[in-house]
Amino acid sequence: MKKQIAVLRGDGIGKEVTDAAIAVLETIGRRFDHEFEWKHGLIGGGAIDETGQPLPDETIQLCEQSDAILLGAVGGPKWDQNPSHLRPEKGLLQIRKHFELSVNLRPVKAYQSLLAVSPLKEDVAKDVDMVIVRELTGGLYFGEPSHHDDEIAVDTLQYSREEIERVVVHAFELAKQRRGKLNSVDKANVLESSKLWRKVVEDVAKRYPEVEYEHTIVDAAAMKLITYPSTFDVIVTENMFGDILSDEASVITGSLGMLPSASLRVDGFGLYEPVHGSAPDIAGQNIANPVGAILSAAMMLRSSFGLLEEANAIEAAVQKILEAGYCTSEFKNIGREVLSTTEMTKKIVNEL
Amino acid sequence: MKKQIAVLRGDGIGKEVTDAAIAVLETIGRRFDHEFEWKHGLIGGGAIDETGQPLPDETIQLCEQSDAILLGAVGGPKWDQNPSHLRPEKGLLQIRKHFELSVNLRPVKAYQSLLAVSPLKEDVAKDVDMVIVRELTGGLYFGEPSHHDDEIAVDTLQYSREEIERVVVHAFELAKQRRGKLNSVDKANVLESSKLWRKVVEDVAKRYPEVEYEHTIVDAAAMKLITYPSTFDVIVTENMFGDILSDEASVITGSLGMLPSASLRVDGFGLYEPVHGSAPDIAGQNIANPVGAILSAAMMLRSSFGLLEEANAIEAAVQKILEAGYCTSEFKNIGREVLSTTEMTKKIVNEL
Ligand SMILES: CC(C)[C@H](C(=O)O)[C@@H](O)C(=O)O
Ligand SMILES: CC(C)[C@H](C(=O)O)[C@@H](O)C(=O)O
Repeated sequence: MKKQIAVLRGDGIGKEVTDAAIAVLETIGRRFDHEFEWKHGLIGGGAIDETGQPLPDETIQLCEQSDAILLGAVGGPKWDQNPSHLRPEKGLLQIRKHFELSVNLRPVKAYQSLLAVSPLKEDVAKDVDMVIVRELTGGLYFGEPSHHDDEIAVDTLQYSREEIERVVVHAFELAKQRRGKLNSVDKANVLESSKLWRKVVEDVAKRYPEVEYEHTIVDAAAMKLITYPSTFDVIVTENMFGDILSDEASVITGSLGMLPSASLRVDGFGLYEPVHGSAPDIAGQNIANPVGAILSAAMMLRSSFGLLEEANAIEAAVQKILEAGYCTSEFKNIGREVLSTTEMTKKIVNEL
Repeated sequence: MKKQIAVLRGDGIGKEVTDAAIAVLETIGRRFDHEFEWKHGLIGGGAIDETGQPLPDETIQLCEQSDAILLGAVGGPKWDQNPSHLRPEKGLLQIRKHFELSVNLRPVKAYQSLLAVSPLKEDVAKDVDMVIVRELTGGLYFGEPSHHDDEIAVDTLQYSREEIERVVVHAFELAKQRRGKLNSVDKANVLESSKLWRKVVEDVAKRYPEVEYEHTIVDAAAMKLITYPSTFDVIVTENMFGDILSDEASVITGSLGMLPSASLRVDGFGLYEPVHGSAPDIAGQNIANPVGAILSAAMMLRSSFGLLEEANAIEAAVQKILEAGYCTSEFKNIGREVLSTTEMTKKIVNEL
């Protein structure tokens, strides 16, 4: 198989961890006889500095010509005071919207060997294995009117049936392949948009009798993610609830640096990035955890290219290295061997 | 002092725990020579059954004639399928709006003796002592337009400077009396309403040079509440973020049943209720934890009546009984003596 991949390393540790993911994909290419062609583009703060735009046109073109997008992370204090159209995050919002990346997948899985660093008690966190499916291109972050002056501000939460349906269908499909349990999170006791959301879920559910589904109110979900996290299999929710809940979920197992994500278009085209941010404080020190980026690459192989065996190989290699007692700097003081970014990457590459 | 208090016991365990709060207030009245007059009214599911409305006019009148409102909890499976204007929660939304209860205070404090039931590691949860200040009558839950049909749904997040300012000022005042730290939570990297929110916080902050304040993005706040909960002192945020984050925060110490809340108008009039819900599954069994309601009564004495000594007396009594090893049924299996609702209430009353 021959694939062209747009590489948007972004800012801070985004660069280092993306390089790690590329190294792993190169290894996969050699072992399974695939050819990956890398096309580098700018996004985020670096793009603002060089082109005056968080998502330059050349980057959009490059992504349009590619089969998938691999992204590092964007942002940093340098751009924090910029007006909003010149902020690194704007590049993320624009790329999601431009490519209609409406389905955001965030798996959260506990690594037994790392539970010591979870803020949760080990027996609460130990069996966590869920995927949060977040609607990514609708709702409050994109609705109009949206403006403010010195006295009044308005944002608009809008959803069409179609926007809701495509992400809900994806979530049911996923639940069917997993443990067959779906939690749809809304605020249907107050919000009109949640009422439509709930109706659509009910309608789609009829087509998936094998999936057991449940509606959970967002505030109750925020509690249950902490008190009973292992009871969740697939969670589906709208953009902003998903933003908050997926970040909440990302810290419960203590392995934030390990978590990948995918943002998909309905046809399977997608953008893959680790959940962690650009971490400017540790950038350039070769100590960042590359596992989130590497597992994002595995998601790319599976979701955009249909290369299941290759994806499984990466995940198995990561698992093995972690079980063998290796980790990166954020896990120091738990009696495990701490590796640099490049050392960790090499271990995983060798395991492959 | 003579005060008239509107008592809205509501549904489920709301009834039992409100009775407990009344018993404690009666004791305070005798000891400190105050007279409390109780006026009972309907709200929630019970009100729907008897009058066809979740917040009947008689209840509004009764509250208007009172000096404060003591509320239990509303809701239950019986009314879950009702149309939204006939749902118990609607009564809550209406009473907040009618009385302009714009400032919701939710203190979360760890009880050393109960950390064993926290889902968090004891050393993560042990020093938690924060107050979440939630804006309660604006934003997405009240903005217009708000409607849905079968194809499209809209909700509106609107805030005026004035609505933001009154809750932010309250939060700064509170931070000044506490440890002098304030976290304002928003999504200013995306939402226009958050940009105005942030401006107002900056403006108000100038009047409180003694308070150290910080802006935190809501998704980061959702993480930090779990990873570093004890770093928070006062958190202030808009209605929906506050809904989610305060419920998230309410479970981190394991003492949900202990948590009180106050919903205040700017002149000090207020509604006081425990954070927990109506818990229909354990209603009527005399096993609910009355402490959340009892501590809500203490907040009433302090915030609406200025009775600081009396409020402190209740809090000290509760603390003492918990330290003495007593608890209610949700804490069984941690080797403490489990009391019924009425036994726990009697212990606290005797301690007073
Ligand atoms: C940076 C920001 C716009 C973005 C979002 O809120 O969607 C981020 O928080 C995320 O979750 O990917
Ligand atoms: C019942 C519901 C309307 C209410 C809210 O969302 O405000 C509740 O969740 C709360 O937090 O008091």
